[in-house]
Order: sequence, then C-alpha cells, then structure tokens
Amino acid sequence: MSESITQPAPDLHPEDHLTSSAMLQDVVIGLSDGLTVPFALAAGLSGAVASSGLVITAGLAEIVAGSIAMGLGGYLAGRTEVEHYETELGRERREVHEVPDVERAEVDELLAEMGLSAATRQLALKELTADPEQWVRFMMKYELGLEEPDPKQAPKSAVTISSAYAVGGLIPLSAYFFTATPTEGLAWSAGITLVCLTVFGYLKSRMTGQPPVAGALKMALVGTLAAAAAFGIARLVSG
Amino acid sequence: MSESITQPAPDLHPEDHLTSSAMLQDVVIGLSDGLTVPFALAAGLSGAVASSGLVITAGLAEIVAGSIAMGLGGYLAGRTEVEHYETELGRERREVHEVPDVERAEVDELLAEMGLSAATRQLALKELTADPEQWVRFMMKYELGLEEPDPKQAPKSAVTISSAYAVGGLIPLSAYFFTATPTEGLAWSAGITLVCLTVFGYLKSRMTGQPPVAGALKMALVGTLAAAAAFGIARLVSG
Repeated sequence: MSESITQPAPDLHPEDHLTSSAMLQDVVIGLSDGLTVPFALAAGLSGAVASSGLVITAGLAEIVAGSIAMGLGGYLAGRTEVEHYETELGRERREVHEVPDVERAEVDELLAEMGLSAATRQLALKELTADPEQWVRFMMKYELGLEEPDPKQAPKSAVTISSAYAVGGLIPLSAYFFTATPTEGLAWSAGITLVCLTVFGYLKSRMTGQPPVAGALKMALVGTLAAAAAFGIARLVSG
Repeated sequence: MSESITQPAPDLHPEDHLTSSAMLQDVVIGLSDGLTVPFALAAGLSGAVASSGLVITAGLAEIVAGSIAMGLGGYLAGRTEVEHYETELGRERREVHEVPDVERAEVDELLAEMGLSAATRQLALKELTADPEQWVRFMMKYELGLEEPDPKQAPKSAVTISSAYAVGGLIPLSAYFFTATPTEGLAWSAGITLVCLTVFGYLKSRMTGQPPVAGALKMALVGTLAAAAAFGIARLVSG
C-alpha cells in the first residue's frame, strides 16, 4: 500500500479512467436521447403531414433545440457541482475553525458508524483532527460524500452531450432526405434507428457490466414506444 | 453521538429529506427540458410554417416522445443503479470471504489515506474486519462510494420526470391553441415561457443554494438560445 503512494503511475491511471468514463457517460446521455426523441418526433409527423420537407424542418429544429438545451444543461449542471463543492468546502473550513468541538463530535459519530470502538475512536480522532486541512478533506469526503469536481469537466460535458445528441438525431432523420414520401421515410428511419438503438443498447450494457442482450432490447423498446406514442398523438390531433 | 443511534427519529428525518429532494431533482430535470425543447421546437416551426395546427401537432408529438423517452430513460437508469449496487455487493462479499488478505490491505490503504497512523490503523483494521457484514458495508461505502439505492425510486423517478416534462412542454405550446397564426402564437409563447423559465431558474437556484438571480438569467438564456437556433435552422431549411 505504502509502495503505491510513492509511485505516481498507479495514481494517474484511475484518473485517466475517470475522465474517459465521464466522457463516455456524456456520449451515452446524448446518444440515448438523440436517437429516440428526434426519431419519435419524425415518426409522429410522418403520420400527420404529407411532405417530407416538413418532417425534415421539424426534425432539424428539434435536433438544434435539443442539442443546445442538453449541452447548456450539462454545462450548467457541471458548474453548479463545482460551485456547490466550493461552498461546502468554505463552510467546513469555517466550522473546523469556529466550532471545532461540534466538528470533532461529527468525526466521532462517523467513526462509530464505521464500527470502531470508543478507545480506537479516541486515538483516530486525535490523528484525523491534528491537521485542519486533512480534517476538512475527511469531512468533505466521508461526511458529505463529495469528491472535488474537475472545473474543466463542465465545458467538456456540454460539447460532448450536444454533439452526441446531434449525431444521434441525424441518424433517424437522414432517412427522410433520401425518400420521396414521409411514409417511405418512416419505414427506412424505423429500420435504421432500431438497428442503431439495439447496437447502442448492447454496447452500453457491455461497458457498464449489465446483461447486454437485455440492454439492447430495452433501448429498442424505449425508441419504439416513444415513436408509437408520438405517431398516435400526431394522427389524433391532425385527423 | 451514541444517543442519536438509539433514537430512531433523527435517522428518519434525513431519509425523508433525501426522498423529497430526489423527487424535487426529478421535477427540476423534467421541467428544465420540458420548458425549453418543446418551446424551441414550436418557435422554430413558427418561422417555417403557415399553420398553427402544424406547430401544435409537432409540439404535442415532441412532448409525448420526449416525456416517454425521458421517463423510461430515468426508470432504466434507476434500475441499472440498483443492479450495479447488487453486483458490487455480491463481489465484495465474495472477496471478503475468498481473499480476505487483499481486502484487509484495501481497508488499511483507505485508513492511511484518511490520515491514521500505523498503530491506530492496526487497531481499527481489527475492529472493522471483525464482522464480515460490517466489513462489506465499509468497503461499499468508503472504497466504492456506493450507498444502497431504493429500488422503489426508479418507477417513481420515471413518473415524476415524465409528468414534469409534459407539464413544462404544454406551457409554451398552450399559446398556439389560443392564437390565430404561428407568428402570434410565438409572441405569446415566448413571453409566457421566458417568465416561467425565469421563475423556475430563480426557485431552482434558491433551493440548491446558488445565487438566484444568476440562476434565473441562466435558465432564460438557455431557452432563448435554443429557440433562436431552432428558429434560424427551420427558416434556413424551409426557405
């Protein structure tokens, strides 16, 4: 254990892993919604309008709107996380300084919850609260369950989610570019999108360690249900 | 500290708080996207089509599609979290049983990171690993940072997110029901939605302890940008 602390390499690897999995998670968020919502909207309109041009116009408007709303939403959520961490850090620092006895009691309570005896807690408490910065770090991580967020993550997330949504949305919509009528477009769009959703659901589940075939079926089901419902409501309203 | 363990009341309160804030978080997720995306789509189409009926058809199709995709998405994410916790719990139980020395070394490493001395670690290690179930709970919470998720949360989240999205989406769309042309509808829709986004952004920031005026302006900005971009692309494609 102490060996791994002196070597920087094993510490760097998990961080790399974390960054790439945060990006992967953003791609998954963007693709899931991008493949389903524009697909379902286009499918819904196909049952209600006669022109492929209208389906394409609405589809592109949705992709732009959704990709901006999701990207900015991801950015603001990331910023809020950073600000929340900083606010809490400031508060813990103040509390350790101003009401050390209250904070000491909180550490003791956490140690008791872990299952330590009164005697061991007394020793541990003295060591954990010897250095104020270490004490604050302990409170942040183990009392509040907060890890320091990377401030560069928010803009990265915004771009990734936004692009993944746009890419996902253009796949189902592309079918309407190359077909004459919305009905024909819908047939191709449904075929292409179901294949993509199945492959995407399979890969996503494999990466997260879930049963991949069930994951593939689930994604395909979400897309089908959303598209069928949108088709139904559009028919109902327009007819 | 030990007093609070024998009394059930102080333990119940934080859980209540957690449940209601999980629901509030779902409402916020659904409303943010519901207020922005259908608003932006309808705004985009207003610049491209002559009939309010078409804007309403597309808007309703989007609301249904988005609310199903988001609700089911929330449900599946919740289920995955429960399954992930169970998988990891099974693995920790197996490891504690099969490779106790490796797991003991991991506990020791965590205690060293907290800042405990070798002597205190030795005592703590013995106490923490005395009961296998307590040991497993320690690993789940402090090594993996996993809290046991509530299996009832996934269906609750699905319904909340989905309803909040539909409610949010019907607000901007309602303007087109009562106006004669898409242009007139857009003017009312933009007015109503910007007011709602501002109020919503203000309340959301107040609840999460962020500066509320900045939060109000941010939400209004996201909606405006998404709507302007959708309007621009729809004009470009249709004209």
